Amino acid sequence: MTDGKLDLHGAARRRFLSAGLKTGLVTGFGAGLVRPATAGEGQRQLSDRLPPWMRQAGAPFSSYGQPSSHEDGVIRWVSANRDMPGNGASWCPLHELEGIVTPNGLHFERHHNGVPAIDPARHRLLVHGAVDRSLSFRIEDLLRYPLRSRVCFLECGGNSNPGWNRQPSQGRAGYTHGLVSCSEWTGVPLATVLGEAGLQSGADWLIAEGADAFAMNVSIPLRPGWERGLLALYQNGERLRPENGYPLRLILPGWEGVLNVKWLRRLHVADRPAMVRNETAKYTELLPSGKARQFTHTMEVKSLITRPSAGMRLPGPGLYALSGLAWSGNGRIRRVEVSVDGGDTWREAALEEPVLPYCFTRFRLPWRWGGGVSRIASRAVDETGAVQPTRAELIARRGRHGFFHYHAIVTWEIDEEGSVGQVYDRRSDAPDGELDIDAGWF
Amino acid sequence: MTDGKLDLHGAARRRFLSAGLKTGLVTGFGAGLVRPATAGEGQRQLSDRLPPWMRQAGAPFSSYGQPSSHEDGVIRWVSANRDMPGNGASWCPLHELEGIVTPNGLHFERHHNGVPAIDPARHRLLVHGAVDRSLSFRIEDLLRYPLRSRVCFLECGGNSNPGWNRQPSQGRAGYTHGLVSCSEWTGVPLATVLGEAGLQSGADWLIAEGADAFAMNVSIPLRPGWERGLLALYQNGERLRPENGYPLRLILPGWEGVLNVKWLRRLHVADRPAMVRNETAKYTELLPSGKARQFTHTMEVKSLITRPSAGMRLPGPGLYALSGLAWSGNGRIRRVEVSVDGGDTWREAALEEPVLPYCFTRFRLPWRWGGGVSRIASRAVDETGAVQPTRAELIARRGRHGFFHYHAIVTWEIDEEGSVGQVYDRRSDAPDGELDIDAGWF
Repeated sequence: MTDGKLDLHGAARRRFLSAGLKTGLVTGFGAGLVRPATAGEGQRQLSDRLPPWMRQAGAPFSSYGQPSSHEDGVIRWVSANRDMPGNGASWCPLHELEGIVTPNGLHFERHHNGVPAIDPARHRLLVHGAVDRSLSFRIEDLLRYPLRSRVCFLECGGNSNPGWNRQPSQGRAGYTHGLVSCSEWTGVPLATVLGEAGLQSGADWLIAEGADAFAMNVSIPLRPGWERGLLALYQNGERLRPENGYPLRLILPGWEGVLNVKWLRRLHVADRPAMVRNETAKYTELLPSGKARQFTHTMEVKSLITRPSAGMRLPGPGLYALSGLAWSGNGRIRRVEVSVDGGDTWREAALEEPVLPYCFTRFRLPWRWGGGVSRIASRAVDETGAVQPTRAELIARRGRHGFFHYHAIVTWEIDEEGSVGQVYDRRSDAPDGELDIDAGWF
Repeated sequence: MTDGKLDLHGAARRRFLSAGLKTGLVTGFGAGLVRPATAGEGQRQLSDRLPPWMRQAGAPFSSYGQPSSHEDGVIRWVSANRDMPGNGASWCPLHELEGIVTPNGLHFERHHNGVPAIDPARHRLLVHGAVDRSLSFRIEDLLRYPLRSRVCFLECGGNSNPGWNRQPSQGRAGYTHGLVSCSEWTGVPLATVLGEAGLQSGADWLIAEGADAFAMNVSIPLRPGWERGLLALYQNGERLRPENGYPLRLILPGWEGVLNVKWLRRLHVADRPAMVRNETAKYTELLPSGKARQFTHTMEVKSLITRPSAGMRLPGPGLYALSGLAWSGNGRIRRVEVSVDGGDTWREAALEEPVLPYCFTRFRLPWRWGGGVSRIASRAVDETGAVQPTRAELIARRGRHGFFHYHAIVTWEIDEEGSVGQVYDRRSDAPDGELDIDAGWF
């Protein structure tokens, strides 16, 4: 003990470990990490130094709660087209969040012409085209059907695309990688509605259209995976938020965000894709061969350490609890490995239950930072055996002008002062050439 | 087909079922439930009748989203002491929600003297008493420890207590039974913090105290179950809301809500309970014998059909999708049975994945309402085999003056006009005597 502080790395560490063994709760985690003060200050607070909020009645009840004013920096980061403020994106602050659920107010946004103010009583979903009969559904019709729920991630195909740039982004983790979020969505199975209309033979595609001022539309193949689709009415228990498609959103777990059409007004069943803007000019990826990938619907296996991450600062050497997220459009996460030496060696992280398919999985690993320059990274493996690639591997396969579907390993470097920034791993040497990602978005 | 409407109970029903079989997604659910309009109206909406929200740019991005103004009736229902507005409760609108996650803004509240406005930088957690050394933790200390997450329900011991009354409540389901909610909580395991302090022998109780103006405190036994405890910092991904304990709340999955002390400032380790107000005058239950139950910490197995439920109206005979919630403080829900004939016969409902211990489980069952008076009810069974009792069984065991821990089967009656109200089941004949529940709360 020094200066009234405990050395928790000795005796207290052993106590912590023995408690862990006794309860079975903390198996796989580390030891006494921090140095809480001894009781002097705390004892005093019990009597003569009662905090002001204990000396007067608190605020009354509220009909709908809001975050603490002390958390008003935990927000989506907005980047929109100057000439068209409804066109752009807002990033989810993953670096401020924990667990796997994204609160509705912080779910990322990607809009083409703003958020429409839809009157749900006047909204209709039309199902037509290669069906036995065209049908028009009111929201109250859809609410009559048996609903299903699914906790799943939703990721924009353009998420993490600063990774294609020559120099690593130094933005906060969520403001670089936060075009992904995870919610419990509840709605009518897509199969139910298509079953009501009756699919005709050759009905291989759905063209889905939203009721926004862009009339955002996109083609969806009826290949395996579509049957997971939901016409979502609820997000995390309550009805959808306007910016997430109120009153009706198509949810296709594991598939690219743009297919999850918000403000859904139309499902046109067809024998071929419509070849619209967001599957030709955008959301396709130029390969080194000069050809482009199209209809790249499945989101690849991916992970990210969210704490610590770029822009944070470790107060000093000692034990830290690394925490991050992994997800895959192929199904469940099988394993997440963490390196604290820039990719030379890897250790398996603990996965928090539940581990669900097409869903965020939270991983955690304790780590002792010695105070020197350190590189930490995570690598996810999904149930199909797909392994998150290094940046060099991804670039070798896809080139550097794909713009979409960046899912390489992310490496954070902690410098001698504890400041965290992003670096590209030593194995990521790649061809030259700058990419101006801002040009690609709108 | 009549009047341009489809009869979906014939051909379309068969289509729906065949689609269900093909995809495997809708197994266990029913058939064409509703009567969407044919395409005429929908086709017109595509061109000459574009809704106004498609003819102008939508709203810009937002840094923190809010519900649609069309959903402004989906709120907590507040009942507070007239002379002390921070003392009372607010009920979660379970009848308006779906899935298992409760959005943070709608999580129920139970406060004794309002919601304190705590500065997290000045807040401390003191751990003292029968420990090897007293410790004082700052929030930033706690954030250094390895965190754990758990999706679990939290229920006030007084939830559903109008059920003890002679006449059934006709309030909305959530406003009678909604002192329960379910969130993903993330925090430091209680075992970690107690391990750091070092429990001494004979340390069998924790007296937990909150930093509100009531200094709400309560005694918690260190008996099996306490090791599930978390010192929660996050709820559904983001930091706690003020009304749910910001910046620190004790979470004890499966145990009575009052033990989940909000604004946690102190854990006093002791060899006996403190016998404070909320474990003597309140949160105890008078039995028919004249004795009272005390320290009734485990919340019993329970369920409730949330849709349809009291105050709703079915528009006409036809197929409906019954939906409800089940939960148990003993662990996982094993089975939920539904009766549509007032308890004469029971059918097993489908349970939505994931089915987690100490967590809401969503159940669903399609049902064809013929148009006559009908009584619908649900009965949950948990993994220990505990069965939700009828009201008569519960009253025979506990009497009618227990006030807390009402968890009997809830029966809704649908009348010939489709209006839904609550009835007590035919097997619930019980001794006379009125109970004025309002007298018991504050």
